[in-house]
Amino acid sequence: MKKIPIIKSRRIRSTPFTSRIENQGLSGYSVYNHMLLPVSFGSIEEQYLHLKEHVQIWDVSVQREIEIVGKDSDKLVQFMTCRDLSNAKIGKCYYAPLIDNNGNLVNDPLIYKLKENKWRICIADSDVLLFAKGITSGKNFNVDIYEANINTIAIQGPKSQNLMQKVFGDQISELKFFNYKYYNFNGVSYLISKSGYSKQGGYEVHVENSSSGLELYDYFFKIGKDFNVKAGAPNIIERIEGGLLSYGNDIDNRDNPLECGFDKYVNLESDILFLGKEKLKKIKKEGIKKKIMGVKIDAKSINLTESIPLYLENSKIGELRSAAFSPKYDKIVGIAMVSIKFCKLSQKFEVKINEKLVKGEISSLPIT
Amino acid sequence: MKKIPIIKSRRIRSTPFTSRIENQGLSGYSVYNHMLLPVSFGSIEEQYLHLKEHVQIWDVSVQREIEIVGKDSDKLVQFMTCRDLSNAKIGKCYYAPLIDNNGNLVNDPLIYKLKENKWRICIADSDVLLFAKGITSGKNFNVDIYEANINTIAIQGPKSQNLMQKVFGDQISELKFFNYKYYNFNGVSYLISKSGYSKQGGYEVHVENSSSGLELYDYFFKIGKDFNVKAGAPNIIERIEGGLLSYGNDIDNRDNPLECGFDKYVNLESDILFLGKEKLKKIKKEGIKKKIMGVKIDAKSINLTESIPLYLENSKIGELRSAAFSPKYDKIVGIAMVSIKFCKLSQKFEVKINEKLVKGEISSLPIT
Repeated sequence: MKKIPIIKSRRIRSTPFTSRIENQGLSGYSVYNHMLLPVSFGSIEEQYLHLKEHVQIWDVSVQREIEIVGKDSDKLVQFMTCRDLSNAKIGKCYYAPLIDNNGNLVNDPLIYKLKENKWRICIADSDVLLFAKGITSGKNFNVDIYEANINTIAIQGPKSQNLMQKVFGDQISELKFFNYKYYNFNGVSYLISKSGYSKQGGYEVHVENSSSGLELYDYFFKIGKDFNVKAGAPNIIERIEGGLLSYGNDIDNRDNPLECGFDKYVNLESDILFLGKEKLKKIKKEGIKKKIMGVKIDAKSINLTESIPLYLENSKIGELRSAAFSPKYDKIVGIAMVSIKFCKLSQKFEVKINEKLVKGEISSLPIT
Repeated sequence: MKKIPIIKSRRIRSTPFTSRIENQGLSGYSVYNHMLLPVSFGSIEEQYLHLKEHVQIWDVSVQREIEIVGKDSDKLVQFMTCRDLSNAKIGKCYYAPLIDNNGNLVNDPLIYKLKENKWRICIADSDVLLFAKGITSGKNFNVDIYEANINTIAIQGPKSQNLMQKVFGDQISELKFFNYKYYNFNGVSYLISKSGYSKQGGYEVHVENSSSGLELYDYFFKIGKDFNVKAGAPNIIERIEGGLLSYGNDIDNRDNPLECGFDKYVNLESDILFLGKEKLKKIKKEGIKKKIMGVKIDAKSINLTESIPLYLENSKIGELRSAAFSPKYDKIVGIAMVSIKFCKLSQKFEVKINEKLVKGEISSLPIT
């Protein structure tokens, strides 16, 4: 595959950390929410092994934060998601599929209730701002909606807690998974959530003031040598093994949340009001026709840039949407959308990779 | 500036022409509407000179086409834009700013009425699909909204008409600017508009069937040798000189259409119903505080990746949003958002480029 450089412009926004990241061995960019997403630092496999043993600092500023404020903010936020947020608590993070009028996915953000009448939506790669504005204008909700000027650093890996304690003090060890709280560094308060796009444990530091954020960024590296800290990025091998879905890759606006395995976040029984609810009731009643599954494939390398069909005896039974070679399984692991009647563990299939037909089988997700 | 490769994935969609383009000397990608946008083929200045003299074939598949169908489609399309479309005619292209509830820009597409109750919106870089779906769900409009599987090739440059006549026949010379019509090649019908993101004249061929589109693409190069045809891309020098704005670069969701010089597309007097109308009336009455202008700067090179402040005697009077060295003017030309009281031709300012303070002046747009 040819290596074609990305051409920057104001439209493809840099982050406060861009110039630092580029001096730390960055070898590949993606673009996400109209912003630069650093995605590789040399070998993906070496980064994977490092992430599972040490601690990494990621620039995930692309995870833009949409804030919704005002007296109808509860109504609007609930209207966008099939997850019941009526008992949402300040201090907790809610993974919540956003749904359109067809019952299909729009985004899969983490939602924080910041205080009464103020919410924050940490989004995947689609313009939730415009979706929310559209709904609001139709419904005449009394809210303000804007993208906050917040850029997030993720601290990920098994040694993330040690590093965070050294910076923010021991009390951070009490922060539980999918909770957030405010902590100080150099006199500046940061909202920190115990969250992140890996299964190795970690935190996300939401930076509101870029210049203090840069001091913090540098400080992580200065004091992190004992923990073998490195600059990193969400790792495709680790996130596929861990079953972390990627909106736009594994799931998109042609899939509904039941097909994506989000059943526990699809609250159709409660009396909350949200977009696509009747559609989802109908889909649930009739049964879904396809579902997201893990796969393992007997091959050693893949470079997936578009979905690849999975075949059983010359019939298409699904499509592979993300894939990477896994050192752990010594084969390719992937995430596929599979016709429902073939969603069985160990179901065999064939798939063409690098011009060769190879064998694979359906697996659970997370991969086991 | 470091050259960092783009990492492809399903989320950053390839186009039907991607593999061809990469074998034609592509040297840089951008990402636009979650899709690969080829943006450079070697020297931008050589491409500029070629575009102004010959003809180029551009892969502008990223200009995604959102279709709105159904009995309330007129209402929805009109609700999204401040341009009066009540007399829109089938066969014409309408440049129409899309506006949010604050009176700010959401996108600046070309809108086509395809037939009664069917519209197509050829969008700039933001998720108009989600905006339209949001509005619809609030308003209970009876419409279907989807992204069509259409990929556009632009034929741009002074020799574009000669090339198009050779492919589609002489009757294409009768197609007028911002009109569209259907033409045949190899038994396949293509919607072709006389439009495109340059001021050198040209056409856009909207490809619905990728395999015949690839035959057409190859045929342009096969028979185009007499016209010195080359693969190309929207050219930043040419489009700045020509005053063609870029959503996300020059204008964005913090600007209103009056600030962007779209006055003739802001139809506040008619009785049409659109989002942000009252807000725009208020803005018009009070007067705008900033405006898009051309600039010329006494320097020979620039690589703009974020906006750069313009100063007059140490006060900020605006910000430069796009810029490139122009061989025609032998200086940098650019597009800036400028405080209204400094929006005067030949107004002087200072700006820091490549660590040096240099002089510039406000110009008209298109640049003259």
